[in-house]
Amino acid sequence: MKVRRSNRLIDMTKYLLDRPHTLIPLTFFVDRYESAKSSISEDLGILKQTFKERGIGIVDTIPGAAGGTRFLPSIPATEAQAFVNDLKDALNDDSRYLAGGYIYMSDVLSYPDTLRTIGRIMATKYTDQKIDAVLTVATKGIPIAQSIASNLNVPFVVAQHDSKITDGSTISVNYVSGSNNNVKKMVLSKRSLRDNSRVLIVDDYLKGGGTVNGLATLAKEFNCEVAGISVLAEENYDRKEFADQQYVSLVKVDIAKHITVSDGNFLKTVFNQ
Amino acid sequence: MKVRRSNRLIDMTKYLLDRPHTLIPLTFFVDRYESAKSSISEDLGILKQTFKERGIGIVDTIPGAAGGTRFLPSIPATEAQAFVNDLKDALNDDSRYLAGGYIYMSDVLSYPDTLRTIGRIMATKYTDQKIDAVLTVATKGIPIAQSIASNLNVPFVVAQHDSKITDGSTISVNYVSGSNNNVKKMVLSKRSLRDNSRVLIVDDYLKGGGTVNGLATLAKEFNCEVAGISVLAEENYDRKEFADQQYVSLVKVDIAKHITVSDGNFLKTVFNQ
Repeated sequence: MKVRRSNRLIDMTKYLLDRPHTLIPLTFFVDRYESAKSSISEDLGILKQTFKERGIGIVDTIPGAAGGTRFLPSIPATEAQAFVNDLKDALNDDSRYLAGGYIYMSDVLSYPDTLRTIGRIMATKYTDQKIDAVLTVATKGIPIAQSIASNLNVPFVVAQHDSKITDGSTISVNYVSGSNNNVKKMVLSKRSLRDNSRVLIVDDYLKGGGTVNGLATLAKEFNCEVAGISVLAEENYDRKEFADQQYVSLVKVDIAKHITVSDGNFLKTVFNQ
Repeated sequence: MKVRRSNRLIDMTKYLLDRPHTLIPLTFFVDRYESAKSSISEDLGILKQTFKERGIGIVDTIPGAAGGTRFLPSIPATEAQAFVNDLKDALNDDSRYLAGGYIYMSDVLSYPDTLRTIGRIMATKYTDQKIDAVLTVATKGIPIAQSIASNLNVPFVVAQHDSKITDGSTISVNYVSGSNNNVKKMVLSKRSLRDNSRVLIVDDYLKGGGTVNGLATLAKEFNCEVAGISVLAEENYDRKEFADQQYVSLVKVDIAKHITVSDGNFLKTVFNQ
């Protein structure tokens, strides 16, 4: 039965939102709604315009027989800035100070809506890049990796500090923690990452850079290329071994018995603000 | 400027999908689109019908001054069954067998679309229940917990086997691993879970039940009530200390050098199939 435009637009919105970065042929929607190609094209035009106006993302149309429609999640600069401001306000709180010069941020990573927005902001940077997988290390990087992976619609793989029996065979690397010079180990299941992937490295917090370097070494062991590095927060810290790495961060944290949180380099790097 | 119905329907779909289990007053949409109350009511009628027909979930309208609209994600029984069948096919694979009688499943937990569907299926069970938080333990439970929490729009908190300095003060419990009688420890940051919450316990795999029992003990330490237990997979295993626990599982795994995966009790419990 032919489906009316109102119903089509609602269902198409849901369908596209669930499948970011996926090319959907026009004929798929023609069949799904038993509607003419011209009607579906008009629908997509309305979707494209509304997604743009409302800052939901880009609805990209690729013409030709092999063409179709893709939804690329992104966020407008103003909305990203507003989110980063809220995040700074939430983190700029001395009760978050932990002895030894650490900051408590786990609560931020427990809210699904916060994570959804972090994922959408980070994915904006990689809209037109080929990313095959997101790579992070347990534990606190996982929620962020999952949100970014969800917006890019690629798998995310999780390295661990100890291998578990349920990982099967693993590859491990040793790395030097940048902030305290300890040698640490990181393992990744051999089956979890495909050779020759372009991986996006994700973590919650960048201090000395050792963890990110470890993840990059691990990626190399899988013959993978590092396509980018995204962290939620970076600490204002002298990263000697990390100077040549390109990364983006949403916020920058200064810890000196009290906490000061300012913009990371993301907004400047991605939106030139 | 007044917004046209087509644009309203697209934006409302996105808006509701991003905010499950959240009551949105009619007047919010009236202001957002500068449209008459009667038009918005009609929009919501169309949304309600399409969401139902397409199996997206329930659009619930609560009348009166304190009323509004809520989106409750859910999945139709047929779609849940199809997903469980695919999952069984993917797991019914002897190459997943790991020495010692374990199954490799990490790949399943790395795909955002798989996780989205798991979250939507599990959330269907708790559509009309008050859940304040999802509780899991690192590492493999996290992606599932995040997906369920996202569909219920509640925070998810992650217990760990060792406390990290960035957890701040923690509460820890000892528990007995049901499958090998080891005593293990589980810690949770004191700030992460509010007193008197109703928590949903989530994990990837249920064998002896020790981990879930540990999480329940931890919940009790925070004066929280266990509202339910959801696991992705349960193993066919004699759970002596777990007999009285109510839980749901999507699949049931038999491991005896080769692997057999069948339905968990979810479909029967929730959909009576």
